[in-house]
Amino acid sequence: MLQSSLFQIEADTEWQDLGNGVSRQIFGYDGQIMLVKARFEAEAIGVLHEHYHSQVTYVESGLFEMTIGDEKKMLKKGDGFYAPPHVMHGCVCLEPGILIDVFSPHREDFLTS
Amino acid sequence: MLQSSLFQIEADTEWQDLGNGVSRQIFGYDGQIMLVKARFEAEAIGVLHEHYHSQVTYVESGLFEMTIGDEKKMLKKGDGFYAPPHVMHGCVCLEPGILIDVFSPHREDFLTS
Repeated sequence: MLQSSLFQIEADTEWQDLGNGVSRQIFGYDGQIMLVKARFEAEAIGVLHEHYHSQVTYVESGLFEMTIGDEKKMLKKGDGFYAPPHVMHGCVCLEPGILIDVFSPHREDFLTS
Repeated sequence: MLQSSLFQIEADTEWQDLGNGVSRQIFGYDGQIMLVKARFEAEAIGVLHEHYHSQVTYVESGLFEMTIGDEKKMLKKGDGFYAPPHVMHGCVCLEPGILIDVFSPHREDFLTS
């Protein structure tokens, strides 16, 4: 059965460098959910994209201009968003920070090992 | 269709007082996922419980002694955990903080309005 470990310790978890000022850690998951920590440097861009997964995100730190569909909003630490399946979404990082992205079902495309 | 708003702004979102030093904000959701911000005062307890949902959690702040099944671990800001369906889990808050709990499917029992 597809499952992560029960506990994820930040210091023991690999940061994957995605280039262009974005890196990520893969946290807890099974077949129907996955939590991913995405770190953005200032001016890094989360390019507009869409996927069939439902996505909910929490802004752990930083300042982001977030676009979902044709809506745009500034999100700071403590805020969050919901990106429905197949709705285009993306962000521009204005102050460096971390997004906690959670997907259902899990992102099989993130498990490449 | 069951869906939250696209954006959740912390300052505009109700804190639900659950008693015993625990309160929560309900953030993004649809039928298959839900993100909940749970705030714990020091010494507050997340009583051991289980549910059929898959759960992934991110420690936004604070210090928690977390139990999942028969494993116990100290988790601090930046760490996380995965609680599989029907596996008992609970926590003791040692330093006040916030857990970002995400469930799949969504917690219909949290939507009582």
